[in-house]
Amino acid sequence: MSSTGFAKTPQPPYYAVIFTSRRTEGDNGYSAMAERTVALASQQPGFLGIESARGADGRGITVSYWASEEDGLRWKQHYEHKVAQRMGKQTWYQDYSLRVAEVKRAYKK
Amino acid sequence: MSSTGFAKTPQPPYYAVIFTSRRTEGDNGYSAMAERTVALASQQPGFLGIESARGADGRGITVSYWASEEDGLRWKQHYEHKVAQRMGKQTWYQDYSLRVAEVKRAYKK
Repeated sequence: MSSTGFAKTPQPPYYAVIFTSRRTEGDNGYSAMAERTVALASQQPGFLGIESARGADGRGITVSYWASEEDGLRWKQHYEHKVAQRMGKQTWYQDYSLRVAEVKRAYKK
Repeated sequence: MSSTGFAKTPQPPYYAVIFTSRRTEGDNGYSAMAERTVALASQQPGFLGIESARGADGRGITVSYWASEEDGLRWKQHYEHKVAQRMGKQTWYQDYSLRVAEVKRAYKK
């Protein structure tokens, strides 16, 4: 599944991890990490899908979907993901917000 | 508040409306509507903020934040927003997903 595709999620309830960020200038290893992190996430228990968009201004939103809150929080604590988070904080992101939310309703075209 | 800024949300719980979409080719009145719709949303009761990103591939994510589920659903039903939704379905979006979620935890850098 591509990181730019739509997630095929089941009927609610399930969980969303909403990550909003603003990139620093330059790649500094970011693209390779982002690809690796999406591949790693998709192998975790309870992973349902991921959606991502980043504009030319450097602001981006990534939403990953999880079967349960525990699955989402376990991913947050994953060792390799923790390493990426540390790099993100130090190098790749000017600032970011992370929100864990329970999806209650869903509609689509 | 700019539509490309970060939302300054309070401590959870609050609600997120996650709108993922893929645009059709051409503007067709989309940019003016998007600007107007963000301005309109920000005047609604319970509005907490909005974050938006769209990549060069036409895929975008907009997350609006609301004090309660009722506030988010009332915005979904707002007359002028309904008109925009109809145009979106017919003209602006190839496809989209809309999810209403309760934010339970939040972190930031």
